[in-house]
This record gives sequence, structure tokens and C-alpha cells, in this order.
Amino acid sequence: MKKLKRSQRLVDMTQFLLEKPHDLLPLSTFAERYGAAKSSISEDLAIIKEVFEGEGMGELQTHAGAAGGVKFIPRMPMEMALSFIQGLCSELEHSDRILPGGYLYMSDLLGQPSLMEQAGKIIATAFHDVPIDTVMTVETKGIPLAYATAAQLGLPVVLVRRDHKVTEGSAVSINYVSGSHKSIHTMSLSRRALKEKSRVLIVDDFMKAGGTVGGMVDLLGEFNAEVAGVGVLVESDAVESEERLLHDYVSLIRLGEVDSKERRISAYPGNFFSV
Amino acid sequence: MKKLKRSQRLVDMTQFLLEKPHDLLPLSTFAERYGAAKSSISEDLAIIKEVFEGEGMGELQTHAGAAGGVKFIPRMPMEMALSFIQGLCSELEHSDRILPGGYLYMSDLLGQPSLMEQAGKIIATAFHDVPIDTVMTVETKGIPLAYATAAQLGLPVVLVRRDHKVTEGSAVSINYVSGSHKSIHTMSLSRRALKEKSRVLIVDDFMKAGGTVGGMVDLLGEFNAEVAGVGVLVESDAVESEERLLHDYVSLIRLGEVDSKERRISAYPGNFFSV
Repeated sequence: MKKLKRSQRLVDMTQFLLEKPHDLLPLSTFAERYGAAKSSISEDLAIIKEVFEGEGMGELQTHAGAAGGVKFIPRMPMEMALSFIQGLCSELEHSDRILPGGYLYMSDLLGQPSLMEQAGKIIATAFHDVPIDTVMTVETKGIPLAYATAAQLGLPVVLVRRDHKVTEGSAVSINYVSGSHKSIHTMSLSRRALKEKSRVLIVDDFMKAGGTVGGMVDLLGEFNAEVAGVGVLVESDAVESEERLLHDYVSLIRLGEVDSKERRISAYPGNFFSV
Repeated sequence: MKKLKRSQRLVDMTQFLLEKPHDLLPLSTFAERYGAAKSSISEDLAIIKEVFEGEGMGELQTHAGAAGGVKFIPRMPMEMALSFIQGLCSELEHSDRILPGGYLYMSDLLGQPSLMEQAGKIIATAFHDVPIDTVMTVETKGIPLAYATAAQLGLPVVLVRRDHKVTEGSAVSINYVSGSHKSIHTMSLSRRALKEKSRVLIVDDFMKAGGTVGGMVDLLGEFNAEVAGVGVLVESDAVESEERLLHDYVSLIRLGEVDSKERRISAYPGNFFSV
């Protein structure tokens, strides 16, 4: 790379850091990339740190020593997260989203990469200091949120299938009861997808009684893996508390009962905001 | 936002532009954000433009006039794309990826958000000057790549389901023949997912004879929508050319026959690199 001025280095370094969240990048990487002294690189990083941290958009950690370097931990400021989620809540409250059976049409929102990226950043913020090896979700609608979260945490995604596919090799299957309908489903995960003892963050788009997430928790048991946390975009209130199968989770949005007759929906910020 | 120095503005603006690819951002947005004169903002943008374009990581377009502004079009330099894809090819050639029936295990690679982001950037590069309204994929394994591509193009994703779900509302279903096995499958898309006349980029992780992609093309016909292009991560060579149902597509990787007996796989850069 040709020699850059400080102003140019700042542009390039910002881009470089944003692309590699949670990666420990040695100062020598930058020094070599720009043919600059480590002391200049340190000054550049101090400027970037000031901007990132001043805006609350993340932390720039500097680790000293031979194995040291710099690490960017993305975060979304609480105020920005709340205003983003309030916007999503108003979107969800449009009455034309109500489908037969009291379901809610959300696919248009889940189909916007930028919304998923923001939501993923909030879930990553909620779990930024928890040790996690992998993000897990079950097909289909939670996939974009799981990837957005994993990208911010610098982690891989493990995808649970509804049935066993030829492209997954040998797999472990379990049955689980979906809480609100008491119906029995199957989910399966490729044996080679997950190492024993992995610490796993479960992410999904929607949770009612928690049966599907509970299925993923059971599946983790089969792999001797651990639940590091559960994050969902929307939790539904429309469940008696004794029916709820899962109590420890982070939700970004809480959905009140969908009134199909009056065509009314209410959505509020989830439990992430009530601490 | 408090007043920033040029060096700080550069960090913030870089971050801002990278988050909003293909969005036309008026200069006044930046002028207000930083309480700076438009002339200073223009100078900042010239520095950013020089770095972005010098490294081939994208174009910074400036549109003059009242409705003008600046637009970041991400791109991956050909050399970087090729070296990334060559790395993926070597990964794919490990013999322990061979599954019964000659299938190839790729879920670990598809599960890495950073790999999907790079691959999505290459597909976005291939189609950067084609007018597109929406990216489309069918569940399940192509979803991360479709989102990564759409994010780079600043577009939404429309997700075709294998069967009709209660959370999608009324839907259009079609049957299609999967080319290599001549078996009949169904796919369906929510009526409200796609506007008439939309120009759609179809993205998938894997293509053999092209039956699945062909199904999506048929589905687009039902919506009076148009195919703007087809991009796949991996195309398989293991198909007679007269069996191939689709001829106009961009592939990043071309997979030779998987030899289950000798446990040999060969993978090469796809047709994107052969122009």
C-alpha cells in the first residue's frame, strides 16, 4: 500500500476496524500497512478511540505487550437503541399487519438488512461482556438477526434445521413441544456444527411461550454445550405466565395481544430497556 | 453532536458512509451533523474519496445541485476478490467435506458472517451498475449471502418459502422441477412481499442444473416482476450442459465433480472471474 497521510490513514483504519469487530489487531499490522511508525499509529488510534467512544458507538480497547494490539467492540448507545426500537414498534402497530389467526406480518421488516443490522447491534450490546463461542438460531426467519448479531460479535453462526438435510452429514435430532399450541415438532443439528462445551448465544426473531428456544436449549444439552444467553427481537405477551417455558432472555420488543376483531396491536420496547 | 476537528470528522464520516451504501446523502446532512461549512465537508469527502477509490474498495459519487449529495458504492477490487475466492476453493477441497451421495459439507463456511460479507460484496460488485429493486432468495442456506449482497447494494431481501406459512399472509405458490433429480417441489411467496414490475436479483448458495433458481424465475413471472440477474456462490460442474436449465448467471466458485470413491474434490474460481 502506498504511503498515506494521517488524514488518509484515519479513513482507512476506521474502515479496517469496523470490518473486524472483536478481532485483536496488532499495532504492527497497521504500521506495516501504512509504512508508519508505531507511535504515529498510536496517535491515530487515539483519535479514532475518542470519536467512537465519544459517540458511544463502541469501545476501542488497547492491549499492551508483545501479544497486544487494538480491539473494536461495537456497541449502540442506549438512547439510540431506544429510539430505533420505538420506531420499529410504531411500524409494527399498523393494523394492516394483522393476519388470520392473530399472526403479525413482519417479513418486510425482517427483509431489511439495515434494520437487522441495527437490531443485531443491540443484541450484541446486551451480551458484549459475556463469553460466547457461537450464535445459534433455527431456520428461517431468525437467520438475518442471528447473522447480524454474530457479525457484531465476530462469531460464527450455527443453524438448526427443521428436518435433517443431506447436505449436513450426520445430525442429532430432538422433538420439542411448541408451548402455545402443544404440538410436537422436530429440529436437528449437524454433528460437526458444534464443538463440545461451546458457549452459545441463542437468537430468534419471535418468541411466545418459548417452546422453540427451549428446543434449542435441549439440543445444546445433546452437544454438551452451554447456553450463554437468549436474545429475541419480539416477545409476545399473549401467553399466561405459567405457560412461559423460558424466563431468562433479552427481548427488544414486547408485543401486546393482537386484537383481530378491533384490529389493534400494541408494541413496546422489550425487557432490554427495562433494567 | 459536539463540534469535531477534521481528523475526527473523517473518522465519523467514514463510518457513516460505510453504514449507508447506495444512499444519496445530502452535503447538508454532514454540515449540520458537524456544524461545519459545506466547503469543509467537500474537502473531507475528497480525502475519503481518494482513499476509497485508491484502494478500489468503492466509488464515492458526488451529485451536484439542490437534490445532490454523495453516494458510496462499495466494490471489491478484482485482485482481492480472486484471492479471497481462491482461499475458499482450497477450503472446499478438503476431502472430509464429502458427504454420502457426493454432497459437500459447506455449512461451516456459510456460517461465518465475515465470509458471507466478502462473498456478498463480490456479487454486489458484479451487479453494481444494474438497476435492481430487491434481492430474492429461497430458504435456507442462501439467506446469509442474499442479505450480505443486499446490504452492500442498499436493498431489501424477499424470502421465498418452501411451503406456505401462517405468518406470510396470502401467498402465490408454484411447483418446479429440480433439474438433477427431476423431482417436484413447491415454493411460495407472500403476495405483499413484492411489488409488480420489480427488478429482482436472485441470489443462492448453490446451483446445479438450476431448477431452484428456475423456480424463482417462474415465481417472478407470477408477480409480473423481472429478473435483473442471478448470482450464486457455488455452481456445480456435475451436470450435462443440455441438462442445465439456466445459462445467464454469475458464479463465484465452480465445483468439479465430487469423487466420493477417491475422496477428491476440485474447486475453481467461477465465471465471474473468467470475463
